[in-house]
Amino acid sequence: MTNMKNDLFIRACLQQDVERTPVWMMRQAGRYMAEYREVRKKHDFWTVCRTPDLATEVTMQPIDKLAPDAAILFSDILVVLPPLGLDVKFSPGPSLESPVRTVLQVNELKRFDVQQELPYVFDALRQIKQSLNGCASLIGFGGAPLTLAAYMVEGGKSKNFENLKTLFYQEEKAAHQMLDLLVDIQADFLSAQIDAGAEAVQIFDTWGGSMPREIIETFVIPKIQVLIEKVKRPGVPVIYFMKDAAHALDLLAQTGADVLSIDDKISLSTAAAGIGPGPALQGNLDSAVLFCNKDIITREVQKVLDAVPKGRGHIFNLGHGILPNTPVENAKHMLDEVKRLSAR
Amino acid sequence: MTNMKNDLFIRACLQQDVERTPVWMMRQAGRYMAEYREVRKKHDFWTVCRTPDLATEVTMQPIDKLAPDAAILFSDILVVLPPLGLDVKFSPGPSLESPVRTVLQVNELKRFDVQQELPYVFDALRQIKQSLNGCASLIGFGGAPLTLAAYMVEGGKSKNFENLKTLFYQEEKAAHQMLDLLVDIQADFLSAQIDAGAEAVQIFDTWGGSMPREIIETFVIPKIQVLIEKVKRPGVPVIYFMKDAAHALDLLAQTGADVLSIDDKISLSTAAAGIGPGPALQGNLDSAVLFCNKDIITREVQKVLDAVPKGRGHIFNLGHGILPNTPVENAKHMLDEVKRLSAR
Repeated sequence: MTNMKNDLFIRACLQQDVERTPVWMMRQAGRYMAEYREVRKKHDFWTVCRTPDLATEVTMQPIDKLAPDAAILFSDILVVLPPLGLDVKFSPGPSLESPVRTVLQVNELKRFDVQQELPYVFDALRQIKQSLNGCASLIGFGGAPLTLAAYMVEGGKSKNFENLKTLFYQEEKAAHQMLDLLVDIQADFLSAQIDAGAEAVQIFDTWGGSMPREIIETFVIPKIQVLIEKVKRPGVPVIYFMKDAAHALDLLAQTGADVLSIDDKISLSTAAAGIGPGPALQGNLDSAVLFCNKDIITREVQKVLDAVPKGRGHIFNLGHGILPNTPVENAKHMLDEVKRLSAR
Repeated sequence: MTNMKNDLFIRACLQQDVERTPVWMMRQAGRYMAEYREVRKKHDFWTVCRTPDLATEVTMQPIDKLAPDAAILFSDILVVLPPLGLDVKFSPGPSLESPVRTVLQVNELKRFDVQQELPYVFDALRQIKQSLNGCASLIGFGGAPLTLAAYMVEGGKSKNFENLKTLFYQEEKAAHQMLDLLVDIQADFLSAQIDAGAEAVQIFDTWGGSMPREIIETFVIPKIQVLIEKVKRPGVPVIYFMKDAAHALDLLAQTGADVLSIDDKISLSTAAAGIGPGPALQGNLDSAVLFCNKDIITREVQKVLDAVPKGRGHIFNLGHGILPNTPVENAKHMLDEVKRLSAR
């Protein structure tokens, strides 16, 4: 029996030679797929996250239909909040009943046993790994400390982050304490995901890039550095994705990530110039391109491929998550075109 | 009688010598003031915009209470949409019943007579000018073509701009046609505001910086260039504010604006380095700082002042609009501290 394992994704992350550019999509298990919407008719979002059979089912849907080179666990970065005593409701955006607004509340947050509190995540990873059977690499993930803190302090999505920033400007000690706790929790969580079969992990920093550079320097990059240091293992790539990072490109390289995921605001050549030599790059087709006709999709896929500096590791992806109303056939076209156009 | 006219703001915009740094706040007439909330209890947002007495009243509220060096007309960038046949409701965010989604709809948009359609704007400016009596400069404003197009095409606020971007990627000709029409309308509109007494105008490009750089190069900067060229008059500064512009700093200088307003993501020294020599800078205290105690506010005001390159024209402002729950006494403290700390 030949070895059918598809490890293109891992090899590109580690900047080894690849026959073609690997490709997957952030949020590839999601509402744009009819099969996903069917599952969600019967089960709410939290139930799908917390039921390994369901999480496996929806994680596998895009694998079966679109054949990307990586599967990402279906879950949510906020699964770590309930074990911290913070209940989260989705309606559909996340909202917390009691946000963390005082130093006293920060002091009450405690590290917890991830195996005991989040067994469903690790069970799901084990099941997905088995279902994949080597046809795609399995990615685990978690939220960056600042992004988790943003939800914890603001109590949900925020436009201006005035509570979080007040903590940063005025209660620096408590802010560091909270972020350091989140570093420990995320290190435990991501390491346990690797133990359960994740072959790579991605740290999502959705709100890091919404911060002034000064806050990024003090409260983001040093925390990501420590987190990645704790999680790093030979052969298991760590991907860091800070959205809207154009004002912090030079800082991204300091994180020690194997791969930096880049959003669609700048070309990968501009990103590479700002970051400097080092990590592989992931990205960065504008998700809106998938609403255009197939010729435009092909043209824009080619542009992304052309922007990658020669010899730099590259994983093709969107600039952020695939949008809910994306036509599935356009996503399929994009994946097929990446495979065709990047073949060496 | 001595000349009591306060022209600090205009002089700083034109990079002339000033005794201290002028200061005003974006959205300084707004919900954080009890006096404004009183007016809004009796009148909805559109009514205040469209009634010169009310627009004058709320425009003057922060002038009387906080003594900034400039007053900005109370209005909304979307006042130009109804004359284009696009009705806008505020609830509280703007929403359009019939967004512009097809090339056919783009073709139907027609330039209109601003004097005839928007007389209340010019009446308000004349009234405000009289009320100010020289104690602060009067700023008129309008939306940038792309930002107006974003509302017209998406039908309101958007997170991902997939309709607008589809137009850019797939219907380039119609996109240029719509933007060029908006350039003409905004040129008419801003010029008429200057005729009515505005001593400077600010172009708000709230969503320009949310676009990929490639779109900014093609659909933003060339349009702003033409618009500013049409509006420019000796001694009447044009301010351009693109939010989230960190990935386009070098392009901002090409607009020909006298002043570039900078958000709070980067320091003014970083902005100056990216922009190069030329325009004066406006900004850029993080609005969230106004939720901190007075010592922190003073510290952060000083940091902004310190970041301005020596000899560069500077107008102190926030990085974006003042937030609705800001304590008025903190805004007052900020303004007082700018005046005190910047005195030559």
